[in-house]
Amino acid sequence: MDSGKHSEATTVTKPETKDKGKAVTWAAPLSGYSVSTKAVPHPRPGWKKGVAITDFILRLGAIGAALGSAVTMGTNEEILPFFTQFLQFHAQWTDFPMFQFFVVANGVIGGYMILALPFSYVCIIRPHTIGPRLGLMIVDIVMMGVATGAASSATAIVYLSHNGSRDANWIAICQGYTNFCQTSSEAVVLSFVAAISLMCLVPLSALALKRT
Amino acid sequence: MDSGKHSEATTVTKPETKDKGKAVTWAAPLSGYSVSTKAVPHPRPGWKKGVAITDFILRLGAIGAALGSAVTMGTNEEILPFFTQFLQFHAQWTDFPMFQFFVVANGVIGGYMILALPFSYVCIIRPHTIGPRLGLMIVDIVMMGVATGAASSATAIVYLSHNGSRDANWIAICQGYTNFCQTSSEAVVLSFVAAISLMCLVPLSALALKRT
Repeated sequence: MDSGKHSEATTVTKPETKDKGKAVTWAAPLSGYSVSTKAVPHPRPGWKKGVAITDFILRLGAIGAALGSAVTMGTNEEILPFFTQFLQFHAQWTDFPMFQFFVVANGVIGGYMILALPFSYVCIIRPHTIGPRLGLMIVDIVMMGVATGAASSATAIVYLSHNGSRDANWIAICQGYTNFCQTSSEAVVLSFVAAISLMCLVPLSALALKRT
Repeated sequence: MDSGKHSEATTVTKPETKDKGKAVTWAAPLSGYSVSTKAVPHPRPGWKKGVAITDFILRLGAIGAALGSAVTMGTNEEILPFFTQFLQFHAQWTDFPMFQFFVVANGVIGGYMILALPFSYVCIIRPHTIGPRLGLMIVDIVMMGVATGAASSATAIVYLSHNGSRDANWIAICQGYTNFCQTSSEAVVLSFVAAISLMCLVPLSALALKRT
């Protein structure tokens, strides 16, 4: 931005300086940001690179959390060691549509985050690039919504499993299915970690987009 | 941004024009955006103002949706017209902690959105300002997470109320409490409208922050 200002100033004052009869070589400023002269110092903001690296690391964390929660929940199953003639006591994640959504959503988020890594890497190499940054940011926001939604609806089920609802006459199933509930809770916590990572990624992208 | 450049140019060329002996009145540029001269054409990017106005309108919509959903859910109560000696059939929103969170969260979001309106208005008047825009955006992201979480957990309860869960032996309560379920569903839909408005606000703010 500073370089932009100075190059503009140079263009405007051009007629006046010419009158002094000195031969000055002027580079045509194709864009306001690409021109640098030796007379004007050119402070290159290093913090944008820092932001891009933080972005990349947060993405790695979010991949681990999202895929971890999807796998944890997707393998969540418990068979109780007693059964009646007609009934085997068996709980698994497919019993609840919210848990199904949870697994699919976290799988999709993990997959997207892996695909987004190259773009994030481009932003490290070229901290001033706008296109990939803006694209990543918009998809990040949508994914953040999906992650929060999946984690919250699963949390509601985990809560009901633990405590039941006396008013609705829903019994707490966790007294029986201890491991199932434990694993579900872990998956939900991991999913919230992914959601919060995504929540941090969005303002980081905004900072990188901001004019300095 | 462009106006910033031109005011800079004006300041720089000031000594040269003075030499012509003409009395020129110069307004001291208090901020980079308020100065405009006739000599230099002043192309004002209109799209940033458009973005700011869209932001304001979206905020009005989100206020309506968030407060509407909070009130709808917060007045949600149904007493069935029959009772036994010990039991009156009575459903209300405080029966479920997720509905309590839903009402509080949507109330907070509505309140925040009202407080944010003046800042959004500042962004209409000064489309190039960064501070309020970045602040609003970061709180918007957090509020979007809260809105999505509240809507999703309430959706999980509404779903269970309608369909129950055969595996967990939770009965569907909506066969009895028809109005209660109907009102809950409406509140959830309104809350998703608020969440989606917030989801649109964030990339709009990012666009406004972006260097042109």
